[in-house]
Amino acid sequence: MTPQAPARTYRRLSVEERRSQLLDAALSLFAHRAPEDVSLDDVAEAAGVSRPLVYRYFPGGKQQLYEAALRTAAEALRGCFDEPREGPLLPRLARALDRYLTFVDEHDAGFAALLQGGSVVETSRTNAIVDGVRRAAAEHIYRHLGVPDPGPRLRMTVRMWITAVEAASLMWLDEDKQPPVGELRDWLVDQFVAVLSVTAARDGQTAAVVAALGGVSSIRPDQGAASGAVHRKAEEGADAAHRGPTTTRRGAVPGAASPATRRGAAPDAASPA
Amino acid sequence: MTPQAPARTYRRLSVEERRSQLLDAALSLFAHRAPEDVSLDDVAEAAGVSRPLVYRYFPGGKQQLYEAALRTAAEALRGCFDEPREGPLLPRLARALDRYLTFVDEHDAGFAALLQGGSVVETSRTNAIVDGVRRAAAEHIYRHLGVPDPGPRLRMTVRMWITAVEAASLMWLDEDKQPPVGELRDWLVDQFVAVLSVTAARDGQTAAVVAALGGVSSIRPDQGAASGAVHRKAEEGADAAHRGPTTTRRGAVPGAASPATRRGAAPDAASPA
Repeated sequence: MTPQAPARTYRRLSVEERRSQLLDAALSLFAHRAPEDVSLDDVAEAAGVSRPLVYRYFPGGKQQLYEAALRTAAEALRGCFDEPREGPLLPRLARALDRYLTFVDEHDAGFAALLQGGSVVETSRTNAIVDGVRRAAAEHIYRHLGVPDPGPRLRMTVRMWITAVEAASLMWLDEDKQPPVGELRDWLVDQFVAVLSVTAARDGQTAAVVAALGGVSSIRPDQGAASGAVHRKAEEGADAAHRGPTTTRRGAVPGAASPATRRGAAPDAASPA
Repeated sequence: MTPQAPARTYRRLSVEERRSQLLDAALSLFAHRAPEDVSLDDVAEAAGVSRPLVYRYFPGGKQQLYEAALRTAAEALRGCFDEPREGPLLPRLARALDRYLTFVDEHDAGFAALLQGGSVVETSRTNAIVDGVRRAAAEHIYRHLGVPDPGPRLRMTVRMWITAVEAASLMWLDEDKQPPVGELRDWLVDQFVAVLSVTAARDGQTAAVVAALGGVSSIRPDQGAASGAVHRKAEEGADAAHRGPTTTRRGAVPGAASPATRRGAAPDAASPA
């Protein structure tokens, strides 16, 4: 309830410091409770300040505080997608997913409340913030795929996969975070390859993307036979579909990819996916 | 604005008839406009009655009317999934998708407004209605797959696909209903097979389902080479993944599957998917 309350010292903070202190307190509360269950009194208590002080900084009350927290969360989520355009493509996706799933793990209740909708603090503004994160995720993917101008089928495929990742994240929280996060990540990466391959059979642009996917990578060293079979399948499908160059396999996904390094009090939620 | 207004005859209707007349009028308005843009005056005018009469039947005003309309829409959507458990599996899925996409087509604006969230009429109650439709869609799929007790991986896969179908429907509306509905339907069916195949490599229950999928059907007669390649791919993947019986191909999807026969004034929206 009172994470790191600064012992009521009321030390003199700059406006910017105070604002960010309040936001941090709000973020850590919104991360693990539905917005309905967080009051301004809770925020004041968590920050070790008075309620009027919270109102001085956020005169719009909880709604304004929630939106500010959400914006900070959205920033953090966008940060999850930052990945250098180097090395095989699928491991890049896997690393971004690792960071994203770490975020989901750390903001479980807030993430679920936000995405399940129907919350009292949900407005067209909060929806726009969440949708902005989804759009950012899609843009990152297009950039990594090397497609500056994706056509409607590729866009639909990528957005469908992003939505499916979101759904998977919510169900994963519901299922007590099972399967283990590494398995979930690999499963999602494989689904990405599979749905792209399906679209490749109908769309030249996507076919070229899938061909390039095969070309940049080699077999995962850390995958068992079953998973390997699926990878092979996806590639065979892609090959069969558009007679691309007979390429080598997908990239080596680091067995235990680095969880995101995330800064201090982390925010509510939003979804890159 | 005034579809089939009954010429102000104020003929004596039973309570049930009147209620359903008002609901029909509301449904046809909510189908094509965001709830924000529908007033009780509009509903009264469309039904050819006075505003107080609308209030007599729906004392909760627009919110109550919207929820009643949504419940009727949800019923209609559940109806889309009704499909006899006969014949090859994938054509059954294709027929259900045809009905669902016809519904989306007929309730475009209302469907989009409902699912995009942030509407003034959205509450945890309306969300629960929509979520009930999603759950019903999943239950139908489990039943058709012959899996009375799906494990978490199969459940996650089915729910992810349903969410992806929802996302595809929204984007399809955004893209002026392109690609043509038959193509969209086949693409979605192929994605279903592809994501199931990915999960089959990780989950025995899903592997058995995929094996059975292959076993119940024969090659689609109406599909071109590209699509055929993807189907082959999915089956090869499934075979490779769990060494199922070497089965024949998927089912024959009727070239132009029957659009759903839908009754009169149709409702707002919700999503089976």
